[in-house]
Amino acid sequence: MHQRADFITLATADLDAARAFYAAGLGWSPLLDVPGEILFFQVGHGLVLGLFEASAFDADLGGPGSPPAVSGVTLSQNAASAAEVDVTVERMHAAGGVVVKPPQNAAFGGYHAHVADPNGVVWEIAFNPGWSVEADGTVRLQPVE
Amino acid sequence: MHQRADFITLATADLDAARAFYAAGLGWSPLLDVPGEILFFQVGHGLVLGLFEASAFDADLGGPGSPPAVSGVTLSQNAASAAEVDVTVERMHAAGGVVVKPPQNAAFGGYHAHVADPNGVVWEIAFNPGWSVEADGTVRLQPVE
Repeated sequence: MHQRADFITLATADLDAARAFYAAGLGWSPLLDVPGEILFFQVGHGLVLGLFEASAFDADLGGPGSPPAVSGVTLSQNAASAAEVDVTVERMHAAGGVVVKPPQNAAFGGYHAHVADPNGVVWEIAFNPGWSVEADGTVRLQPVE
Repeated sequence: MHQRADFITLATADLDAARAFYAAGLGWSPLLDVPGEILFFQVGHGLVLGLFEASAFDADLGGPGSPPAVSGVTLSQNAASAAEVDVTVERMHAAGGVVVKPPQNAAFGGYHAHVADPNGVVWEIAFNPGWSVEADGTVRLQPVE
């Protein structure tokens, strides 16, 4: 198995709310939008975030029929500074996001916040001075103190 | 907010089982391994998968104290052919993964399977003839039929 993820797919109870948040609110461009079924955004080099209507998500996995909610996962975006964390969190809040953890110093030595989208998907917005990405995509992480 | 995800972080009840599956079982190289706390793998260009000990994950989000499990999310890896889907699923099964959906034709026109890791994280392994990635990382997706 290759060491690679190509899609992150999230069960999404309210696709219209997701579209309003990411596209209208944050200005993201959908890669593909199939109303009532799935909404795709490119969120990295070769990386797609899929917001999949929750009951269809459940059916695809052969689930028990109770549409799942997303839990136990955060998606993170790293900012260039603590100030950019603050600005990003304000933008997400203005777009309808719920601030779960206000911007503050983080245990890993940086500064971060958590914001939930309208479907409860939690994003961490972080300034992490120990993280960097080289031109070829290689990530460098300093050990956690 | 930039249209980008840098980390995927998953609440992980059994870090040792995760390490055994991804590193020993599948041959992945950890980017950083902090036993008892967090295990990082690079899974794309600038993209990190973090397996975060579940109670620490919960505490980081200021949760209610019941360690969360991952639900409502799948991570996908696209294979070059249906045969590569079969081989990958066999490899994951041999490493201790649980086959949730055996390889089969998919609603999107390709061929796929779902396999859960030892902590219940579901991976979709898919051959999707409508998906491609250009050299600059741009993803092309054909509309869902």
